[in-house]
Amino acid sequence: MKIQVLLKKTSEWLNGTGPESDLVLSSRIRIARNIKGFRFPGKATSEDKKKILSIVESVVSSSKSSMLKGSLFVHIHELDDVDRQFLVERHLISPELSNASTGSGVIISNKETISIMINEEDHLRIQVLHSGLQLKEVWKTIDELDTELEKTLDFAFSSKFGYLTACPTNLGTGIRASAMLHLPALVYSKQINKVLHATVKLGLAVRGLYGEGSEALGNLFQISNQASLGMNETEIIETLSKVVRQIIMYEKNQRRYLINNNLKEVEDRVWRAYGSLTTARIITSKETIGLLSTLRMGVDLGILESHLRKLVNELLILTQPANLQKNFDRKLNPTERDIERANLIRQKLVRNSKAGKESKEDEK
Amino acid sequence: MKIQVLLKKTSEWLNGTGPESDLVLSSRIRIARNIKGFRFPGKATSEDKKKILSIVESVVSSSKSSMLKGSLFVHIHELDDVDRQFLVERHLISPELSNASTGSGVIISNKETISIMINEEDHLRIQVLHSGLQLKEVWKTIDELDTELEKTLDFAFSSKFGYLTACPTNLGTGIRASAMLHLPALVYSKQINKVLHATVKLGLAVRGLYGEGSEALGNLFQISNQASLGMNETEIIETLSKVVRQIIMYEKNQRRYLINNNLKEVEDRVWRAYGSLTTARIITSKETIGLLSTLRMGVDLGILESHLRKLVNELLILTQPANLQKNFDRKLNPTERDIERANLIRQKLVRNSKAGKESKEDEK
Repeated sequence: MKIQVLLKKTSEWLNGTGPESDLVLSSRIRIARNIKGFRFPGKATSEDKKKILSIVESVVSSSKSSMLKGSLFVHIHELDDVDRQFLVERHLISPELSNASTGSGVIISNKETISIMINEEDHLRIQVLHSGLQLKEVWKTIDELDTELEKTLDFAFSSKFGYLTACPTNLGTGIRASAMLHLPALVYSKQINKVLHATVKLGLAVRGLYGEGSEALGNLFQISNQASLGMNETEIIETLSKVVRQIIMYEKNQRRYLINNNLKEVEDRVWRAYGSLTTARIITSKETIGLLSTLRMGVDLGILESHLRKLVNELLILTQPANLQKNFDRKLNPTERDIERANLIRQKLVRNSKAGKESKEDEK
Repeated sequence: MKIQVLLKKTSEWLNGTGPESDLVLSSRIRIARNIKGFRFPGKATSEDKKKILSIVESVVSSSKSSMLKGSLFVHIHELDDVDRQFLVERHLISPELSNASTGSGVIISNKETISIMINEEDHLRIQVLHSGLQLKEVWKTIDELDTELEKTLDFAFSSKFGYLTACPTNLGTGIRASAMLHLPALVYSKQINKVLHATVKLGLAVRGLYGEGSEALGNLFQISNQASLGMNETEIIETLSKVVRQIIMYEKNQRRYLINNNLKEVEDRVWRAYGSLTTARIITSKETIGLLSTLRMGVDLGILESHLRKLVNELLILTQPANLQKNFDRKLNPTERDIERANLIRQKLVRNSKAGKESKEDEK
């Protein structure tokens, strides 16, 4: 299966680089576009969907844009359950698209920074995803990509509503922008609910690692705009950026407080998380995310070596059920997964055995 | 303070040697004796108690028996709280004696295998403690010691009741024999209560690591005879040995079952305990005992290297509050203790870094 190729490299957004990457895992923008003359996917015939898929694929493959060079073309109906879940876990397709049948597909760019879903809720859902807080840069990329595609594709547009979309919340610019924040100190100090309530009051949405309806595992919170009608892209991105920067400030203050007042407790928690991850023989995905979050906080607070950040980000995805199974290239039952997950984590972390300054001292 | 000398060596009973030492931490027998012509300590005047203490000390110091050579003579009223607790934690005095004032003392033999408490509930409480299951050998030692002391001391004895003691449960031989068993598999599989109920029905008592009223921490259970009147020493020791051997068989069966049916879960539990102990920065005494118990099971089941057994036994005592403070040679508040305990454990365990076969593989 060709998507196996994705396993060989790390998604760019997991690099742990970019501005504020100690608090912001990734920045993401997606736009919704529909092609004039075809019904929305929910109402389109299977034939129409196939036609749309083929049109988009031919436009992308004939594009000379460096952004799209070396892209992977995937047809959803050709994938088994594990493959579909694998793409969801890597944030390359939505859970909705993973349930789609004939006529739906996704085009994935070389570094997994761009994914174009075809026949999800709209004909095109174009997503750009980068590590760290860089919504403006992400917007620049997606805007260029939009322009590039619009050279050939005729997008449905109304002078009154802007870009037409299947769901009215996406009308206008059709843009949804989000940042994935890691807020362990606010959770630790039980300040998180206050902060999230304020965020929602400002018109933004808060979600977990896997979008709508997903639990906020691993102290990861996705903050995004709610609607796009009546605001231009710059306004949406600026509002989101402003709120995100505010939350970052709260989290940083809380981290400073923890270091000044609870350093020993935090060290204990971080090192024990490291201890569990490097010794467990059976571990669930849920426990893993929680422990990795604590490790990440340890890196951020200077308790663990900074080279661990990228590894922690990688493990966050590699230990998800479908990624794990793709890595082993066979189906695993839940118990086997918990065992293989523990093996994988131990291998990866023990190879990076110099975790922190104190652990070096211990070895004397 | 002279008891500091005890810190420099490991008590013999912690060696982890002797028969069945994978399941039996130690075997202990104590006898109660009183000197004719003096009231029991509960009724004796302070002057009388001082006299008794001095008599016993002079008898022991002038004895030519090799068992008593190099003994330490300790007066309880000269000890501070930490010192008293220190001796309780090392099983050298009872909690009762630790509360005694002028006129009470303890004589501790070179390897801590013998301790003679003076003016606890009786004038003399003579204890012999060895590692592993060797009640008969312990009895031989204590019998010799009894004979040696009786050469000079005139013990209160009635032809009807046997040796007279302050409490009627000790009448007769005045013997209490016990074995400290480590029964993690029976606890793990929730069979322990059934086994302990049967033990009590057979007329034996079940206690925790620190005797009467103490919690059964670390899956450690002290099994002892209840009364001594009407039975001779051999009967008491044989009954106890028989029951202990029965319990050992149950525990071994359960361990075999765990290895055959739940190996991965047990490995996970053992390695995680190792992970917590080698990474924690703050750890209570209670958590420590629990984790050390799991490590001990890991050694017994061949998951961890066998050289760890002695270290686990040692840590069981060294991490107790007063032993910890004696080790640091200053008073520590509970928070400081939890931190220093974690440091001590890490130092000791990381120095023994080759914990198990799998961890070596991990290092590749």
